[in-house]
Amino acid sequence: MADNSTHVAGIGNAIVDVLVHADDLLLHRLGLTKGVMTLIDAQQADAIYSQLPAGIECSGGSAANTIAGIAALGGRAAYVGKVKDDQLGQVFRHDIRSAGVTFDTAPSVSGAATARCFVLVTPDAQRTMLTYLGACIELGPDDIDHAAITGAEVTYLEGYLYDPPQAKRAFLSAATAAHGAGRMVSLSLSDPFCVDRHRAAFVDLVAQHVDILFANEAELCALYQTEDFDTAIRQVRGHCRVAAVTRGDKGSVVVTDEDIHVIAADPVEAVVDTTGAGDLYAAGFLFGFTQGRDLATCAMLGGIAAGEIISHFGARPEHSLKDLVRRKLGPQIFDNLR
Amino acid sequence: MADNSTHVAGIGNAIVDVLVHADDLLLHRLGLTKGVMTLIDAQQADAIYSQLPAGIECSGGSAANTIAGIAALGGRAAYVGKVKDDQLGQVFRHDIRSAGVTFDTAPSVSGAATARCFVLVTPDAQRTMLTYLGACIELGPDDIDHAAITGAEVTYLEGYLYDPPQAKRAFLSAATAAHGAGRMVSLSLSDPFCVDRHRAAFVDLVAQHVDILFANEAELCALYQTEDFDTAIRQVRGHCRVAAVTRGDKGSVVVTDEDIHVIAADPVEAVVDTTGAGDLYAAGFLFGFTQGRDLATCAMLGGIAAGEIISHFGARPEHSLKDLVRRKLGPQIFDNLR
Repeated sequence: MADNSTHVAGIGNAIVDVLVHADDLLLHRLGLTKGVMTLIDAQQADAIYSQLPAGIECSGGSAANTIAGIAALGGRAAYVGKVKDDQLGQVFRHDIRSAGVTFDTAPSVSGAATARCFVLVTPDAQRTMLTYLGACIELGPDDIDHAAITGAEVTYLEGYLYDPPQAKRAFLSAATAAHGAGRMVSLSLSDPFCVDRHRAAFVDLVAQHVDILFANEAELCALYQTEDFDTAIRQVRGHCRVAAVTRGDKGSVVVTDEDIHVIAADPVEAVVDTTGAGDLYAAGFLFGFTQGRDLATCAMLGGIAAGEIISHFGARPEHSLKDLVRRKLGPQIFDNLR
Repeated sequence: MADNSTHVAGIGNAIVDVLVHADDLLLHRLGLTKGVMTLIDAQQADAIYSQLPAGIECSGGSAANTIAGIAALGGRAAYVGKVKDDQLGQVFRHDIRSAGVTFDTAPSVSGAATARCFVLVTPDAQRTMLTYLGACIELGPDDIDHAAITGAEVTYLEGYLYDPPQAKRAFLSAATAAHGAGRMVSLSLSDPFCVDRHRAAFVDLVAQHVDILFANEAELCALYQTEDFDTAIRQVRGHCRVAAVTRGDKGSVVVTDEDIHVIAADPVEAVVDTTGAGDLYAAGFLFGFTQGRDLATCAMLGGIAAGEIISHFGARPEHSLKDLVRRKLGPQIFDNLR
C-alpha cells in the first residue's frame, strides 16, 4: 500500500450542530422522544428554533465527526459531504479542513441552506436530535471522487445517508468502487429509527457490502428485529468481517468469525453530553485498524476517543486525542505509524 | 416609574464569536498581543480564519452579553445593534431574543456580513480578540428607537461603538435622548486600546454624559494616562455618579462622590476563559442597581455573574445566574422585584 494513501475516506451528511441545553419539559412540549434523531423540514426547523434557548454552533455530522477524530489521532483522512456555499457551510469547511481532513466536495450554490441539527442535551447527558437535511439532499453519485475512494484503505459510510434519496446511490457507488479496488467498506448504523426506516436495505448492505460494521446494541437489535442482544450478535457474525458493537458504559464487543472481544468502557469522570460517542468510537477503532493494531486495541482506542467526547458539550474533540491515548496506552502506540 | 418600563437598554456592536483554543505560538505567528482586541477587515478575517483551528460559534458582542445577562437575572432588557439578514445574523437574533431581550433593530439586507470576532483562548484563560465589524458599520442614528431609550431606566453603551464611525452619532443621540428624559447613561470603556483610540472623546463623554462608568484598571489608567490606579480613581471621582472598576481576581472598587466600596472577587474553582468577564460584571451590577440595591450588593452581583462566565468557554451564561445568586446571596435578593 502506498505510504501516503488515505487511511479512511468518509461519506456523510455534512451538518452544523446547534447545541442547546434542554430539560424534559421542553422535549415533552416539542413532542420529542429522548435519544432519537428526527428529520424535520425547513418550516419545522424555523418553528422549532424559535422555541429553543440560546445555543452554540459547531460542526457536526456523524461521519464527519468520525473523520475529524481519525485526523486528530494522526490518520490520513478524507471526507465527502454536501454543504451550501453559505456562512454555516464555510464554518463546516473550515473546521473539517483545519482538523487536517481533505475535503473537496463542491458546495451547492443554490437551493437549500447548509444542513443543521438541533441537538437538545438534557441534564442526564442524553441528546435528542432534530435534523434539517438542507443541502445534504443534493449529494449524488457525481460527488463521489472514485480516485479518492479507491485510494482509501477503508471507505466509511453513515447509515443516515439513506435518508436523503440521492445519497443512497452515491453511497452504493462508493461501496462498489471501494470493493472493486480491493478496499474495505465500513458502515455505521447511525440510529435505531434510521435502521427501522431502511431495514431491508441495511440487512442486504451488511451481508453484501460491509466489512466493518459499527452499531450500538439498540441499532443491532433493530437490524435483526430481536430484543435479545446475543441473538443479534449471532446474526451479524459471518455477515461482515468485523462488527464493533458499543454498549454505553458497559464498553464494547467486537465480533469476527473467529473471536469475540469484550472491552470495558474507558472510565469518565462525568458524562456531560453523549453526542458523538458512537462517531468517536468509530474514529478510534478505525485509526487503530488502519494502523494494523489488533482488534482489542482498536476497541480500546475507540473507547478512549468516545470517553473524551462525552466529557464535554459537542461532538468534536476539545482535548488532544493523541495526548489522551499516549497517557492511557503508552506512547509506543504512535510508533511506526503507517 | 412605570411597572413595565425597561430596566436597561443596551447599544453595541452585534457580533457572533468564533471561539478557538490557541497557544502562545499561534498568537506569535499571527503577530498578536495577548489580551487585546484588534480590528480586522474582511480580507484579513478570511486570511486569519484559514489559520485557526476548528472553533465553536456563539453569540457575543460586549453590550449584548451584558444585556443577555441582565435578562437572565430577571431584568427587563432591550438591545440595539446591527446584524445582516444572513445565517449568523439569524443566530444572533435568535440567541438574544431567546434570552428574553427585546431586539428590534432592522437587519441590513445588503452590504457586509454579520460581524464576527475570533476569540483566541490561551491555556492561561486569557482571550485575544480579532474583530471584523461587518454589518456593525451600518448602525446609525436612525436605528435608535428614542421611545425605547427614554423608556429605559439606564441606557448602556459599549466603548467599542466608537470604532464604527456612524455608530458614534447613534451613541450620542441615545445618550442625549436618555438624559433629556431624566434617565441615566452608563458606559463601558471596553478595552485599553479602544480608550487609546478615542481618549479625548471618552474623557469628554465621561465628564458630560456618563452616570455609571464601567472599566477595568488598565482601561481607567489609559483614560487618564496614568500608571497609578489611585490617581485614576481620584480623577474619575466627581466626573460621574458611580464608577465601578474591576480588578480581576482582586475584585472590584466602586467609587462615588461620597464613598469607596472595595469588594472581593467571587471565588472561582478554575478560570477557563475570561471572555465576557467585564460584560457580565456590568450585567450583575446593573441588575442590582435598577432593582434599587445598595452599591456593595450591586458589585457582589457583578462578581457572581463574572465568576460564572469565566468558569467556562464563551461569554453567555451556561448555568442559571438566578440559581447562582440565590445560592450565594440568599433567595430574598429576588423578592419584590420592580
